[in-house]
Amino acid sequence: MRLDLTDIQQARIETVATASLSVATSGQGFIDITREAARFLERIGARDGALFLFIRHTSASLVVQENADPDVRTDLVTALDRLAPSDAGWVHDTEGPDDMPAHIKSMLIGVSLHIPVTDGKMALGTWQGIYVAEHRARPHHREVVLQFLGHVEA
Amino acid sequence: MRLDLTDIQQARIETVATASLSVATSGQGFIDITREAARFLERIGARDGALFLFIRHTSASLVVQENADPDVRTDLVTALDRLAPSDAGWVHDTEGPDDMPAHIKSMLIGVSLHIPVTDGKMALGTWQGIYVAEHRARPHHREVVLQFLGHVEA
Amino acid sequence: MRLDLTDIQQARIETVATASLSVATSGQGFIDITREAARFLERIGARDGALFLFIRHTSASLVVQENADPDVRTDLVTALDRLAPSDAGWVHDTEGPDDMPAHIKSMLIGVSLHIPVTDGKMALGTWQGIYVAEHRARPHHREVVLQFLGHVEA
Repeated sequence: MRLDLTDIQQARIETVATASLSVATSGQGFIDITREAARFLERIGARDGALFLFIRHTSASLVVQENADPDVRTDLVTALDRLAPSDAGWVHDTEGPDDMPAHIKSMLIGVSLHIPVTDGKMALGTWQGIYVAEHRARPHHREVVLQFLGHVEA
Repeated sequence: MRLDLTDIQQARIETVATASLSVATSGQGFIDITREAARFLERIGARDGALFLFIRHTSASLVVQENADPDVRTDLVTALDRLAPSDAGWVHDTEGPDDMPAHIKSMLIGVSLHIPVTDGKMALGTWQGIYVAEHRARPHHREVVLQFLGHVEA
Repeated sequence: MRLDLTDIQQARIETVATASLSVATSGQGFIDITREAARFLERIGARDGALFLFIRHTSASLVVQENADPDVRTDLVTALDRLAPSDAGWVHDTEGPDDMPAHIKSMLIGVSLHIPVTDGKMALGTWQGIYVAEHRARPHHREVVLQFLGHVEA
């Protein structure tokens, strides 16, 4: 193991910018919102700080995952179905067999995350994209709150 | 899939406020701390920014989940016990059979999250509550650090 | 259940400091980066705020876990291998049998987290350490972005 700390930079922060992103999903799967997050940062003139994302639901999630091979997202859906199967004797089934598995998946993946921003750009890795993970079988309208805390252009 | 970015707002940020929340749990299960988080924001006069929560333990978690039907929390506990069973030949068992499963659950759910705050209110969805997830079988004292980064009333 | 909110403190925030941490891993397992995170806070003169960590990969994670008994980390690796087995018929296997399981583990644990900072010290619990979780079988170079948002010494 080797560790190396480099490129320390400081900037002034004075702004919080908040926006709402509506996402219409088409059933279980991953929706790429990276471009919309970048558009938000452009619109507000973001420079240095961090982007915080929060999804206002308990049967969908936010996740950073591979954006190259779509097979990865197919396998992620399979993996989630194995970890939270629909025919597993759940007590809560008022909204159908995909309801409780959706809550479990939301708990495992989470509803909030952040991305560092430097010089107005998200510091995502080469293969990283930001996704809304829809866990319900049917299409839903999902709302994501985007916030930038940092320094913006005058 | 449709995406729609709306309601961009900006505010000044100048304050970090920090507090400690003690939670006495009564064994495995979920404890709602949404009201205490709201009380913290009220006390400091929070307006726009984000609330950050962190739990100082490795056998408990923080999670945003459904606050309507208590059956959901029952099923979430069941799901976690299936994903991290107690009789699975763990090497680490110095504190009893629920110890290592508690660490696994803490790793899967996580110990930190954030909630956006606008006009002094958390932007939680209709059915979202903030919970401490206790993974140990016996009651424990848990400590959550609450922080608001943003703009507060003078 | 009892809840108790104490020790509310406020400080001014005006700075975002960003740095990059390179971590050379030696295959599947956990690498402690707590000391490097503390060193970053010292170097920038951090006082009150929060430390945000982000890993720029989709087959590794960031996690806060027990730093006392190394058996815990051994069991965590075992648990992850059971939740995301390598011989499970994944479609995506271009990079070998440990590739898709690594993406699943990254999704479950996550790539971003934060730690509160007060008086220049991280508010970690007694047994908490910050770890890079390497999910690939072979050694990799991993990059973690560290950010402090808060008040720094003049």
